[in-house]
Amino acid sequence: MTPAAKTKNISIVLYKPKYAGNVGSIARAAKNMGIGNIIIVGAADLNREEMERRSTHLATDVLDQIKYCDDIGEALADFQYIVGTTARLGKARGPFNSPRKIAQDLVGISRKNKVALLFGPEDTGLANNELRYCQAMVTIPSTRDFRSLNLSHAVMILCYEIFTAALPATSEAPPKWARSGEVEGMYGQIKTLLAEIGFLNPENPDYWMMHLRRFFARSGLLSREVKIIRGISRQLEWSMRHKKP
Amino acid sequence: MTPAAKTKNISIVLYKPKYAGNVGSIARAAKNMGIGNIIIVGAADLNREEMERRSTHLATDVLDQIKYCDDIGEALADFQYIVGTTARLGKARGPFNSPRKIAQDLVGISRKNKVALLFGPEDTGLANNELRYCQAMVTIPSTRDFRSLNLSHAVMILCYEIFTAALPATSEAPPKWARSGEVEGMYGQIKTLLAEIGFLNPENPDYWMMHLRRFFARSGLLSREVKIIRGISRQLEWSMRHKKP
Repeated sequence: MTPAAKTKNISIVLYKPKYAGNVGSIARAAKNMGIGNIIIVGAADLNREEMERRSTHLATDVLDQIKYCDDIGEALADFQYIVGTTARLGKARGPFNSPRKIAQDLVGISRKNKVALLFGPEDTGLANNELRYCQAMVTIPSTRDFRSLNLSHAVMILCYEIFTAALPATSEAPPKWARSGEVEGMYGQIKTLLAEIGFLNPENPDYWMMHLRRFFARSGLLSREVKIIRGISRQLEWSMRHKKP
Repeated sequence: MTPAAKTKNISIVLYKPKYAGNVGSIARAAKNMGIGNIIIVGAADLNREEMERRSTHLATDVLDQIKYCDDIGEALADFQYIVGTTARLGKARGPFNSPRKIAQDLVGISRKNKVALLFGPEDTGLANNELRYCQAMVTIPSTRDFRSLNLSHAVMILCYEIFTAALPATSEAPPKWARSGEVEGMYGQIKTLLAEIGFLNPENPDYWMMHLRRFFARSGLLSREVKIIRGISRQLEWSMRHKKP
């Protein structure tokens, strides 16, 4: 199942958005993250051209599917779980969740429930009247001195967290490294080469080799890279021998 | 140390951005997430008014501090660690990191190193010529059928991940629940009330009580909530007794 299929029960509900440009940006952001359902409450007269300009033509299908509603109660009536977004941290409004925590919850909850992510107007955010409908609250972390996020940025962060939470648990495993046999073969060859050009102290050839080993160990070596280094070393040896008087 | 203080060595480098509006949005997003350094390469003639309109007046200080450069090599010369952002997943360009992984790395790396987050132009993204400078690559996950993010949204996701990674490890611990003694007192009171109104079967009064217990246990009860429920129950009992003929 794709991440988008996992989150098909999640909708974005915009309460009285003021700027058509933001709605366009939101349509694009939602589509980037596999969310296709947008409901707009109390703002039916947004300029379509401005929306399209900011959504790019690739997200106009999301604009076409926007549902418009006059009443918030009616807009939310079919949802089983409603999450309010707010920057205000009034104590009476808690408990607040981080976008990450709520995203993990929603991927599970939305399997059997229709979920609404409710966002308020650009200037004032959600008021208590709208927050009443919400079972959970989410606040996007930001610096204390400048909490006010652009509306489309706030939507993007939530959609991105949900998309990420819905991704199959990919182990961001390191790549497959070269085998020790390959690597030791390379060190042997380098050592011969460095001895030949007089870089290594014959009495303690391993002193500089240890530094080189540490460097390569730190970066890690792919099989392909070992082959490249050995190829370069071979070529160096060859040209030195053939240039010798 | 605040998250912003932890990431003061991180800069956003925009290579040939096309739209002043995007730069304005980026200034706002960066400031929201405590990042104040922006460098613009190869685009000195962006419309200031359009930038300000989108940054909001609260982020004009970030606009004032933008450094402009003609040459990418010069712009990046002082950085020790450069991260390229790309949507293209060409094999030769890997290994790719998720924003979350790179953010965790950068909070550590930026303690002793100047870090640049490099973003390409809106339409084409970074080309191999710019990616050459990068020690690491990051790709924002998105749906296969619509990978193209708005530039300011891409910047916001990276900044948000970095800010979140720099936050002190807050345990999003559940709240402090009511003590068992409080809760049992409440159940006793409810049981008496429900018996009084004939809701409970006198032969098996605990049958419905068990359902109520399960419901309350699932939601969890704060001390304050137990007091409210007990208050309501007391009031109900009182009014029933005083209304009886």
